[in-house]
Amino acid sequence: MAFLEFTRLDERSVIEYVKSVAALSSLLKLDDEDAATEKLTVKEIGDGNLNFVFLVSNSSHSVIMKQSLPYIRCIGESWPLTKDRAYFEAMALEEQGRITPHHVPQLYHFDPTMSLIAMRYLPPPHIILRKGLIAGIQYPLLARHIAHFMANTLFFTSLLFHSTLDHKRQVAKFCGNSALCRHTEQVVFSDPYQISQYNHWTSPYLDPDAEALRHDNLLKLEIAILKSKFSEQAQALIHGDLHTSSVMVTLESTQIIDPEFAFYGPMGYDIGAFLGNLMLAFFAQDGLVDQPDHRKAYKEWILETIEDTWNLFYKNFVALWDEHRNGAGEAYLPAVYNNPEVQLLAQKRYMTELFHDSLGFGAAKMIRRIVGVAHVEDFESITDAAKRASCERKALNLAKMLLKDRTKFEGISQIVSAIRQF
Amino acid sequence: MAFLEFTRLDERSVIEYVKSVAALSSLLKLDDEDAATEKLTVKEIGDGNLNFVFLVSNSSHSVIMKQSLPYIRCIGESWPLTKDRAYFEAMALEEQGRITPHHVPQLYHFDPTMSLIAMRYLPPPHIILRKGLIAGIQYPLLARHIAHFMANTLFFTSLLFHSTLDHKRQVAKFCGNSALCRHTEQVVFSDPYQISQYNHWTSPYLDPDAEALRHDNLLKLEIAILKSKFSEQAQALIHGDLHTSSVMVTLESTQIIDPEFAFYGPMGYDIGAFLGNLMLAFFAQDGLVDQPDHRKAYKEWILETIEDTWNLFYKNFVALWDEHRNGAGEAYLPAVYNNPEVQLLAQKRYMTELFHDSLGFGAAKMIRRIVGVAHVEDFESITDAAKRASCERKALNLAKMLLKDRTKFEGISQIVSAIRQF
Repeated sequence: MAFLEFTRLDERSVIEYVKSVAALSSLLKLDDEDAATEKLTVKEIGDGNLNFVFLVSNSSHSVIMKQSLPYIRCIGESWPLTKDRAYFEAMALEEQGRITPHHVPQLYHFDPTMSLIAMRYLPPPHIILRKGLIAGIQYPLLARHIAHFMANTLFFTSLLFHSTLDHKRQVAKFCGNSALCRHTEQVVFSDPYQISQYNHWTSPYLDPDAEALRHDNLLKLEIAILKSKFSEQAQALIHGDLHTSSVMVTLESTQIIDPEFAFYGPMGYDIGAFLGNLMLAFFAQDGLVDQPDHRKAYKEWILETIEDTWNLFYKNFVALWDEHRNGAGEAYLPAVYNNPEVQLLAQKRYMTELFHDSLGFGAAKMIRRIVGVAHVEDFESITDAAKRASCERKALNLAKMLLKDRTKFEGISQIVSAIRQF
Repeated sequence: MAFLEFTRLDERSVIEYVKSVAALSSLLKLDDEDAATEKLTVKEIGDGNLNFVFLVSNSSHSVIMKQSLPYIRCIGESWPLTKDRAYFEAMALEEQGRITPHHVPQLYHFDPTMSLIAMRYLPPPHIILRKGLIAGIQYPLLARHIAHFMANTLFFTSLLFHSTLDHKRQVAKFCGNSALCRHTEQVVFSDPYQISQYNHWTSPYLDPDAEALRHDNLLKLEIAILKSKFSEQAQALIHGDLHTSSVMVTLESTQIIDPEFAFYGPMGYDIGAFLGNLMLAFFAQDGLVDQPDHRKAYKEWILETIEDTWNLFYKNFVALWDEHRNGAGEAYLPAVYNNPEVQLLAQKRYMTELFHDSLGFGAAKMIRRIVGVAHVEDFESITDAAKRASCERKALNLAKMLLKDRTKFEGISQIVSAIRQF
């Protein structure tokens, strides 16, 4: 069987596909005489919103096969979405993998015709971080790893490292992912603030909260500014969807997956996505257990992780800046920023703006998960609707405050204090 | 003679070229039997910094032929610059001509191999606006025309009018003009603030002023922010070099030429370029005449033109926004910004940021014309160096103040008051 045109794979045809591609046959040792006769097993394991994901294994080796279809999986054919996203995911995996190979699964194969990516399987005990947060598991290396991933992928694709010529070449390449950018613009920056058929929330409890959003002029002004930044500012190659279900973890390993929304956008969108989703996890904790104090220590760990993530990101990012300040990066030429005082001022200003952007985007991501189309399992797994609504309302109110007042905060410890007050 | 590969044209070969292209032969009536025998005249009239420009005429028709060479004309082969800029100039002329045909010369022909553009000749009494400003000529329609050009070209290429898909497609196309963007980054945002072989100024008078720039940390911080905006913010298709030598005028006509620096950048860069160059013209006036009061009325006219340009731009831009608010533009969806109060707030905020950007970019353009590589005839034609330096210092000091304090200004009339104080 040849795959010369796009065909939706199923559990049977995916085996034919693997056999037809030398690189994959070789990975699964199908060219080995003993193994060739061995049965391959296939399991569809996609639980995301968008794609189909197959785990193909023999007794000793496994490969992940991810196929994009021309619509959004969790909605169906009524919400079309270009399957070209697989191309951008493959390019981003490659680029991020080159920059931080320890935190990105290896790309084995990409087939543009089939919109298909083959990549390294992350074996147990890897689980989706969100599920770990719901289960109350502490990940002592999480903040350090995520900070490393974000600082490196964002720094090395920004004008702090790139020449203008390299930067614009890369920006142009990822402009092609416009359909997914447009999708984000709609579901994050627009739908929660208007009546949309896709919006839903814990009704009737949050009915007045959802309505209030649609009448909050000051909030709309702030979201407009963030939407413009998202649409116009080609600051770095961002993951574009860096929530806690795009991270797989064990106690020792942190792997970033699913960069199909990647494009050159504002760095704060990635940082905010991660921090905002940790905040959602924080507010969900009281709903996930019978007694609020059952997760008291765990909530403290989440707050520490929020604080550590930003602080370590800051430290790593500025260290990279210092290390590469005589390189090709054209934003701050050493001959202009040639004294320690102006260097320090420039870095402080840059990082402060990035902090405020991160707070704003993080808040926007929290709001959309409570009143928009796609919710998070952290809240959804709270079966008692009243209890869920109470957790969600706290998160929503924090997010509204952060979105409006983000520029008043000077450091992450003030954010942690603010979270405690909701 | 065929032109199958790039050949630098001279006054003789340009005639061969015209004869070899049907569209141009036809324009010059070379296919008309009577005219075919008529002699064509050619004159090289390029007085810009970058290219060669030929005027090809018979007794009744004329065509402008502009060729880009792989270096900067005013420096020579030691400063290479991609001749692909002709492609971006042709694309921008086409796009701007489509949007505001009355203010852009018609594009007749583009030859990518020869890096050659043929366009409509703007006949006398059209002159370069800068020369008109030096001669003390008032142009009663200038502010209205420029405001129309800027409002329309910027609005119709922004996300206020574009869908995200159209916008990113266009952004990608113009990312290819990165060599010229990089050139601007160097000469506008970097060189004036560092020691550079190309910098020069009215020495020894401005030696301390030039040195002070290189040690002004707060100024460097502000220029860094503007440089990042210039390099990262794909807000609209900007002309990219909208100074007073990129405008040709008569008392009735205003034509915008030379958009070879065009790309998707911040709108304020165009607005600031024009306003900043008017300010340079203002400060040059006292040096251009024997007695300061000889140009008193003219200086008032320049100030009025500065004020009218911004005010009419504001009015036109917001009117376009109102008119097209139910269109494809995705920045401010009507269902979100669905009440007059939030609409008004959003427009006010947008225009205020644009105003501050314009002041900053305008100031940067002024500074670079006094201590950078390329100066302006307004000042250069003041033969008495002491007098010239005195005019330049006033412009420089205003620009430094505007760059640092731009966000403190609320309207253009405050800027006019500030100009009077220098």
